[in-house]
Amino acid sequence: MSDDWLNKINWSEDGLVPAIAQDAVTGRVLMVAWMNYEALKLTAQKKEAVYWSRSRKKLWHKGEESGHFQKVKEIRVDCDSDVILLQIEQQGGIACHTGRESCFFSKLENGQWVDVDAVLKLPDEIYKK
Amino acid sequence: MSDDWLNKINWSEDGLVPAIAQDAVTGRVLMVAWMNYEALKLTAQKKEAVYWSRSRKKLWHKGEESGHFQKVKEIRVDCDSDVILLQIEQQGGIACHTGRESCFFSKLENGQWVDVDAVLKLPDEIYKK
Repeated sequence: MSDDWLNKINWSEDGLVPAIAQDAVTGRVLMVAWMNYEALKLTAQKKEAVYWSRSRKKLWHKGEESGHFQKVKEIRVDCDSDVILLQIEQQGGIACHTGRESCFFSKLENGQWVDVDAVLKLPDEIYKK
Repeated sequence: MSDDWLNKINWSEDGLVPAIAQDAVTGRVLMVAWMNYEALKLTAQKKEAVYWSRSRKKLWHKGEESGHFQKVKEIRVDCDSDVILLQIEQQGGIACHTGRESCFFSKLENGQWVDVDAVLKLPDEIYKK
């Protein structure tokens, strides 16, 4: 497979684009992380989400520590070619490092953020040493 | 309503966060744009999406030119407090400036980007002078 398709992406100055992981079945938005050229290329090759960790400054094969890999069913890009949308199957049903299904568990209610989703598994159980 | 909740957001160095607009009924991801402090504050006040246009460097009340306002049903933030997720009702059924329902109409198929969604209305008809 040629890599030409990667040249369509409008990478930011730091060489990144945001990537949304959406549950392919329920449609729930699970998380947003960042990808560089290599991460997006690997995501397409492996059919598993690979991001660029801005904090650790390295490629991050999602699930490499937790076992919560993201099987990629579809890759889309938006009209400006600067945001990626993945349809995924979330292994273990947990995308968030807090042990929740989705990273978007905090909801604005009457001027306050309220955590409305349950923790399915404690982080200590997810990231076993 | 106090503005304290806005201080939870981890704005980037340039004072922005990405905001995802998701159809509140179908779950389809319609677009991603950017918000600064003022845009997010106005979004919560008006219950209509207000973004920060990075190209025009000004607040952008989505729909101000097209009439395609986005009624905001819910606002969430992710675990890192640096991405906003809106559940919206898209007026006119068109979120994308190309006249499509969603900005994510380009799908990776066998190493090529393929436009898979129909144009519902021509841009010239949307942005009448």
